Amino acid sequence: MPKISNKGTQMPESPIRKLVPFSEIAKKKGNKVYHLNIGQPDIKTPEVAMNAVKNFDIKVLEYSHSAGFESYRTKLSQFYKNQGLPINFEDIIITTGGSEALLFAMGSTMDPGDEIIIPEPFYANYNGFSTASGVNVVPVISSIDTGFALPPIADFEKLITPKTKAILICNPGNPTGYLYSKEEMMQLADLVKKHDLFLIADEVYREFTYDGDIHYSVMNIPGLEENAIMIDSVSKRYSMCGARIGCIVSKNKELMAAAMKFAQARLSPPTFAQVASEAALDTPQSYFDEVISEYRERRDTLIAELHKIEGAKVATPKGAFYCIAELPIENADDFARWLLESYDLDGETVMVAPAAGFYSTPGVGLNQVRIAYVLKKEELIKAVQILKEAIVVYNAK
Amino acid sequence: MPKISNKGTQMPESPIRKLVPFSEIAKKKGNKVYHLNIGQPDIKTPEVAMNAVKNFDIKVLEYSHSAGFESYRTKLSQFYKNQGLPINFEDIIITTGGSEALLFAMGSTMDPGDEIIIPEPFYANYNGFSTASGVNVVPVISSIDTGFALPPIADFEKLITPKTKAILICNPGNPTGYLYSKEEMMQLADLVKKHDLFLIADEVYREFTYDGDIHYSVMNIPGLEENAIMIDSVSKRYSMCGARIGCIVSKNKELMAAAMKFAQARLSPPTFAQVASEAALDTPQSYFDEVISEYRERRDTLIAELHKIEGAKVATPKGAFYCIAELPIENADDFARWLLESYDLDGETVMVAPAAGFYSTPGVGLNQVRIAYVLKKEELIKAVQILKEAIVVYNAK
Ligand SMILES: Cc1ncc(COP(=O)(O)O)c(C=O)c1O
Ligand SMILES: Cc1ncc(COP(=O)(O)O)c(C=O)c1O
Repeated sequence: MPKISNKGTQMPESPIRKLVPFSEIAKKKGNKVYHLNIGQPDIKTPEVAMNAVKNFDIKVLEYSHSAGFESYRTKLSQFYKNQGLPINFEDIIITTGGSEALLFAMGSTMDPGDEIIIPEPFYANYNGFSTASGVNVVPVISSIDTGFALPPIADFEKLITPKTKAILICNPGNPTGYLYSKEEMMQLADLVKKHDLFLIADEVYREFTYDGDIHYSVMNIPGLEENAIMIDSVSKRYSMCGARIGCIVSKNKELMAAAMKFAQARLSPPTFAQVASEAALDTPQSYFDEVISEYRERRDTLIAELHKIEGAKVATPKGAFYCIAELPIENADDFARWLLESYDLDGETVMVAPAAGFYSTPGVGLNQVRIAYVLKKEELIKAVQILKEAIVVYNAK
Repeated sequence: MPKISNKGTQMPESPIRKLVPFSEIAKKKGNKVYHLNIGQPDIKTPEVAMNAVKNFDIKVLEYSHSAGFESYRTKLSQFYKNQGLPINFEDIIITTGGSEALLFAMGSTMDPGDEIIIPEPFYANYNGFSTASGVNVVPVISSIDTGFALPPIADFEKLITPKTKAILICNPGNPTGYLYSKEEMMQLADLVKKHDLFLIADEVYREFTYDGDIHYSVMNIPGLEENAIMIDSVSKRYSMCGARIGCIVSKNKELMAAAMKFAQARLSPPTFAQVASEAALDTPQSYFDEVISEYRERRDTLIAELHKIEGAKVATPKGAFYCIAELPIENADDFARWLLESYDLDGETVMVAPAAGFYSTPGVGLNQVRIAYVLKKEELIKAVQILKEAIVVYNAK
């Protein structure tokens, strides 16, 4: 019998998928499950995007340009310019989600055995893309006690070896909700310039900031043109995760030429989704204002409720729509399963993502969970109340 | 300045893309270019597929299941069963084009430094996917003199090392048009079983056969369940290349579990395109009958015209919509550029794909071109007439 690859064996399973069989058990028992575990927004997709697809009239559904529609890239560069990002048409390659942009970025900057430094906790699929690329993740721990701020630059510097090729950050962060300040970005910029590394910034949550903080993009850093790679996506911005459109952005011509060869090999990004994404650029500002104010209220509600749990610690997120909470339990993995398998409060229970899956260092974050605030306020309140009761029962076992 | 990866440097450029600047020159000169170089069919996409997207009414464009819609996979397995292929729901993972299915297949079966044997000439992007996966392509030459039939099994066996993990075939072949017989498939089956290899069969042109020959799928081989991986796509079947939907199919559970982890890391295949692809399964047989009879006539026309070129040799394709022609010239690369840059017959010229780009062995196929018959018959006739005249002028230089 033929053997699968080591890669195939080592590819990590998502920390959330592992819980799916247990959520099936909860459902079989007839319990309602509040999903605090997912990153799928419940926000409406802009009608202008959906209508563009309805009105898309062609006879042959052809491959598009491998870098995406020219019209889309042109309009997208204008969108960025309006946001104060000096991004031109030729700095953009449209990809199949931010996911593919991350794969292209890793493939273009790293060879098998190379190393990428990532502050943890981080988006769990960075592990999958690294494994797929044959690249080793070198984590640098950020702490809930600083709200997951950038770890000291010395901590990064200690980890740099001749195999280090890039630093990857997520800003604002999934799962931390942390938003890097301009000063932190400048520190990172100095570091990558000093060591000739790429700085890959996953900015798919760029618009989701809540306290009047300004998002400081990697593309805004003067003199970082050759080192900076931005990852973007329409998934969260327009609540159109199913489109599968993102992009890789850089002013480094050699890097973009390499990424383009990856893009050509897979022919083109999806056409219908590009039509929707191009049209989505006409989404009125009022849409975003509503969405952001909805998320801000959800965040405030969630944090206030979590503070009612005795012994819980939570870093108030400044952006994205996740937070990490430390709970007064020993093992969040066991707790999360138990919640689904064995617990209910009047027929209702909660699904949370154990945070250990977002750390690369073993044994870290065992008593933490990631909570996504993609539910309505009343549901968030109810869910955290259940969580609170459950912790008491769980610890009394 | 940071350095890009070796991978990024080594990623091959498509043999066709290299000619694009020259086709721009031809266009600037006002010459009409007959594109014999492309794999983009001019056939209409079935209306049932396009209409399904128009009528797709949802509020939130969500991620789908990472393996694709359950409804689509269920219906697709029935489609395969109707074709005599014993493929169940759980044997299918929907991918972003056959391209992504190839990447998943390589990633799940091979690690960096492993080897994959591929009969050449082969689809040029196999090189790109191999480079991206860190895998080495080991070519085995098939010859125009046998119509690109399967090379002797002894030729494969000579190349097998402990690093060999898979054999990849394309059936029917791009760029050869060759259709493997049941006997050839059985020989390959014995070989991969003997050496515990995977047999990856790219069958994206399965329906395109012209002489009443039966396509013999890798999924039809009894006892090959653990070794067989099928790659499929809607791109050519329904002339919907821009959808970006394909699939990887296998009965090897361990292999599918590995592929599933790659699928989960990138979240999901595109939603609109899945809607179109699921609906496309209702395309009436009359659509295919028309398409196949159109391609058969085009093929017969093309081959008849090519035989009028003195000194040309051509293997009559049995399937797909390409053929390889050997021309009475020394270097097809130079000839193809010259056609675009310096030649026209009454303001018209031809773009062909130099075949060397489809070989992995250097120096092979230098006097061959790949011709796609995705143009209307009259255009094919005109294009080959221009080619014929051009060869005379070119050789008289
Ligand atoms: C931080 C981060 N990056 C990238 C992605 C990938 O998103 P997509 O491929 O849908 O653009 C996600 C999705 O949840 C994410 O949270
Ligand atoms: C032999 C072969 N395999 C795979 C593909 C990939 O097609 P897609 O990704 O559009 O399904 C193509 C496209 O031309 C092809 O010719």
